[in-house]
Amino acid sequence: MTTMKALVLTASQKLQIQDVPKPKPGKDEVLVKIKASAINHNDMLAYVHSYKGGSTGMILGSDGCGTVVEAGSEENGKWLGKEVVINPGLDWGNDETAQAENFDILGGKVPGTFAEFIIVKTQYLFEKPAHLTAVEASVIPLAGVTAYRALFSRGGLKAGEKVLVTGIGGGVARFLVQFAKAAGAVVYVTSGSEDKLKKAIALGAVGGVNYKDRDWVQKINDLTGGIDLIIDSAAGDDFAKLMQVAKRGGRLVLLGRTKGMISQVDPYEIFWKQLSILGTTMGSPKEFEEMFEFIGKKNIKPIIDSSYPMTKAHEAFERIVRGEQFGKVVLEPIFN
Amino acid sequence: MTTMKALVLTASQKLQIQDVPKPKPGKDEVLVKIKASAINHNDMLAYVHSYKGGSTGMILGSDGCGTVVEAGSEENGKWLGKEVVINPGLDWGNDETAQAENFDILGGKVPGTFAEFIIVKTQYLFEKPAHLTAVEASVIPLAGVTAYRALFSRGGLKAGEKVLVTGIGGGVARFLVQFAKAAGAVVYVTSGSEDKLKKAIALGAVGGVNYKDRDWVQKINDLTGGIDLIIDSAAGDDFAKLMQVAKRGGRLVLLGRTKGMISQVDPYEIFWKQLSILGTTMGSPKEFEEMFEFIGKKNIKPIIDSSYPMTKAHEAFERIVRGEQFGKVVLEPIFN
Repeated sequence: MTTMKALVLTASQKLQIQDVPKPKPGKDEVLVKIKASAINHNDMLAYVHSYKGGSTGMILGSDGCGTVVEAGSEENGKWLGKEVVINPGLDWGNDETAQAENFDILGGKVPGTFAEFIIVKTQYLFEKPAHLTAVEASVIPLAGVTAYRALFSRGGLKAGEKVLVTGIGGGVARFLVQFAKAAGAVVYVTSGSEDKLKKAIALGAVGGVNYKDRDWVQKINDLTGGIDLIIDSAAGDDFAKLMQVAKRGGRLVLLGRTKGMISQVDPYEIFWKQLSILGTTMGSPKEFEEMFEFIGKKNIKPIIDSSYPMTKAHEAFERIVRGEQFGKVVLEPIFN
Repeated sequence: MTTMKALVLTASQKLQIQDVPKPKPGKDEVLVKIKASAINHNDMLAYVHSYKGGSTGMILGSDGCGTVVEAGSEENGKWLGKEVVINPGLDWGNDETAQAENFDILGGKVPGTFAEFIIVKTQYLFEKPAHLTAVEASVIPLAGVTAYRALFSRGGLKAGEKVLVTGIGGGVARFLVQFAKAAGAVVYVTSGSEDKLKKAIALGAVGGVNYKDRDWVQKINDLTGGIDLIIDSAAGDDFAKLMQVAKRGGRLVLLGRTKGMISQVDPYEIFWKQLSILGTTMGSPKEFEEMFEFIGKKNIKPIIDSSYPMTKAHEAFERIVRGEQFGKVVLEPIFN
């Protein structure tokens, strides 16, 4: 049996390099040799839950860039040798409004990108943009399509609008800042870290407020005069306060819950201000394609925090657990 | 001084017929002799608050139908003798997304329709639809435009969709049922009253669930298989549960807060189901006009609960306080 090295989530040792069977591509599939992959929030959730004996034996990883090295059919031979990025949103379905019931994310039930090789259906392959390295391209898929859908399909962003991105440390946040700025918006951010606020301003935001400040709502209103579009992945107690910085007719796009349940929302804020609270997650194949076109057209380069060989995956994950990163953390399949 | 009779809100006696100065129309105004007016939720709030010494000395009333009897300028003479309905949404502004900061509702700061006569700017006049009596037309404005905006502009209702209207006893609810059915939707309702559920089904709803039932969420899901568009004016603790009856991609339009603050919302429901929570109130002049066109085209007749002479206004208001009405309660300026 031919084997390959993969980063496997185990209950006892958390993340372990193991020799696992090297997969063979089926008729509508190819085998991709991974050059770089990136850690996302869903990988972190699985990693953190493994402490409690959560799903184990999985190969995590939703983001990846690599080279097609084997085709499952003659027709797919056209992909051979190509550098590709993988769309990790599987079976979205035909409805742009929402994913189908059987929607899945690569690195969930289906083995992910934290390995030497991965099997991918050709419908999920996308040629690597020419202006990006494999490392740069590898960090885009999940966070990029999530940010694109949040800003444009759900948020309806128009040039000249004021956008607030909360929690600039999060995985999707920097794409939000870069995309919104590239689309002609005026971007503001919040963070609990003064250092990250400075980095966000270097990235194109015009201002930022520390959400640990008791007066953060007033400070944002003083700074901005009210926000057209807020993108939040925290929820929690502060979500109700975000409504106080939204203009009349403003939109709040919600894509996560790192701070838990939403409470103490005054309905009056929602109806009298004509607010729209819009849930979103990942994106459709159409949005994935549009997102890469946008990145190419606007010449956007993703922000890389750091890159680790897969043998040091534990260090990479712990850097994110400590919240030290600014930009994506990359894993490369280097095993010696 | 010429006087007229009006229903004035006083701190001590709540509602009292008083002789007040009869107003004179200015250049861009006309004088309308009221034939019928209707009680809305904002009138109820003022009435209930007057117990606590709230705003007094006001002439309430947002809805009204009457005849133009005096013009403030030669140009406005074309309105003389016409039966008109009044758009109570003053100074909406030019933005369809939201009302301007100085938006006001007739019967708030500006004297309302609970009087013999009222001054109205001609921009707020609308010819009474031919298929309706003055009493029928008088109950439409505020609730009608609110329902229209909620269903169509905000809710984006499409024919064939499943719509849930919560609290069928409320003032806007019957318009929601009638408009949604006329637009080709499949309409469900909730109520705390079995009698009102039956009446809603007679009005065109295909089914209803009593929200006092502990299993109401499950019952709605069993009955409907999930809802595309929910219109709610209650908020409160049940709002989070409404998300459990929304389909993926579903919309929840919120237009009131009779049950108070929203709490215990799981953000996961919002983002994973791609929900849209959309605040709305009243509507623009454009929506007001479209609403009347829709009512004419679909031959919709509003539901009248009862009509009282203005001297019995207290009885009319108390009927609503007790929640006994199904349909609008009308006041007619009859004083003997």
